[in-house]
Amino acid sequence: MLIGKVVGTLVATRKDEKMEGMKFLVVRQVDVEGQETGAYVVAVDTVQAGIGDYVLYATGSAARQTVLTDRKPCDGVIMAVVDTWEVDGQVKYQKFAMGG
Amino acid sequence: MLIGKVVGTLVATRKDEKMEGMKFLVVRQVDVEGQETGAYVVAVDTVQAGIGDYVLYATGSAARQTVLTDRKPCDGVIMAVVDTWEVDGQVKYQKFAMGG
Amino acid sequence: MLIGKVVGTLVATRKDEKMEGMKFLVVRQVDVEGQETGAYVVAVDTVQAGIGDYVLYATGSAARQTVLTDRKPCDGVIMAVVDTWEVDGQVKYQKFAMGG
Amino acid sequence: MLIGKVVGTLVATRKDEKMEGMKFLVVRQVDVEGQETGAYVVAVDTVQAGIGDYVLYATGSAARQTVLTDRKPCDGVIMAVVDTWEVDGQVKYQKFAMGG
Amino acid sequence: MLIGKVVGTLVATRKDEKMEGMKFLVVRQVDVEGQETGAYVVAVDTVQAGIGDYVLYATGSAARQTVLTDRKPCDGVIMAVVDTWEVDGQVKYQKFAMGG
Repeated sequence: MLIGKVVGTLVATRKDEKMEGMKFLVVRQVDVEGQETGAYVVAVDTVQAGIGDYVLYATGSAARQTVLTDRKPCDGVIMAVVDTWEVDGQVKYQKFAMGG
Repeated sequence: MLIGKVVGTLVATRKDEKMEGMKFLVVRQVDVEGQETGAYVVAVDTVQAGIGDYVLYATGSAARQTVLTDRKPCDGVIMAVVDTWEVDGQVKYQKFAMGG
Repeated sequence: MLIGKVVGTLVATRKDEKMEGMKFLVVRQVDVEGQETGAYVVAVDTVQAGIGDYVLYATGSAARQTVLTDRKPCDGVIMAVVDTWEVDGQVKYQKFAMGG
Repeated sequence: MLIGKVVGTLVATRKDEKMEGMKFLVVRQVDVEGQETGAYVVAVDTVQAGIGDYVLYATGSAARQTVLTDRKPCDGVIMAVVDTWEVDGQVKYQKFAMGG
Repeated sequence: MLIGKVVGTLVATRKDEKMEGMKFLVVRQVDVEGQETGAYVVAVDTVQAGIGDYVLYATGSAARQTVLTDRKPCDGVIMAVVDTWEVDGQVKYQKFAMGG
């Protein structure tokens, strides 16, 4: 999985019938330091992620292993909302600031 | 999924028998700002996309999850025509201009 | 799928038993303008492509969806010989020149 | 598979129900010399790897071929802890120094 | 498939139970001219390849289509030892030199 930041939404009325009712989010990939990279993915959301959330997303056939996306022409899915991650002993991101 | 712009067509008479009757479109990948990148894919069209349309396309095994492409040697499929997307609160693309 | 140009052949006597009798072609990836890129793939040929032909090739699990490659340890297959493609209204390649 | 170094952990409380109980590790990809590259993956750990360990990780559908990750929306798994590797006759890494 | 050169070995005692008995080789990817690129893969060997051999390797789900790797968390397999390949009419590599 990769870490991404939800930065937008995408609407598509005309789509494959299997994709009816799917919510598409635009997700920018971030590096382990939390910096946005140029890469992105449009992913189906299965965990009620919101704009600004840092999320974990899976691509490829893994993206069809949720109840919502089973057997759908979908190659990107958000499968977790990140609370925190740390690298080399340093916290790189924390969803809720302490005392907040 | 990634966002692409349909920029052309491709014709191949001699092809694997499973691909008979498939329509191939040339799709340039765009970034989240809507700018074309150097990357492209030749995809099977399942949603009657036209030249100039912005579309969502899926690659890998996801490209076989439509009725049309089931069990075909196909690794790229257009599964939606994009109406609009926005990033960081700004509309980056809108299929029909307001008042149009 | 991506567009490639068949530029060579590869011979491997000692190989997985499932690959017996397969013909390997060396395929250089081209961009939508028809220019060769540095990328390549060694693909199984299912459509009798020849040296110099422009072809469509599929990678990943799609490469096992032909009768010839079913359940084989093969991740690249040529599934069509390209006749012509056009981008932005311009013909980028045509297999047989007019009047030829 | 690729070689990676486990450099951190990631916590995600809200996640797809199939991912309950999974432990996520942040893994930096290394090259064959053992140097860290910019690439990373967040992987499920199936072999009790620790921070600082060099590991082998698999991506894509291979990541679902362990008992722990079967049919899960998971595209990265650590499936081995590396003891040593050598390239061009030189040992590039050894988990336990001699005499240690 | 891609062409690689076997440059080393990797040992991992602690690994997923499905990977017991597997032999891991470090394979550097080469371009069509035979020049080593920076990319590599750690692959399971199914054809008794040796250090210095040029091989064909498959990645992704194709890597599980051999008897040895069936249903294993393995995303890279060596499925052939290359004898020779040629590009643009020139032999780029030949396993046994003539007269040797």
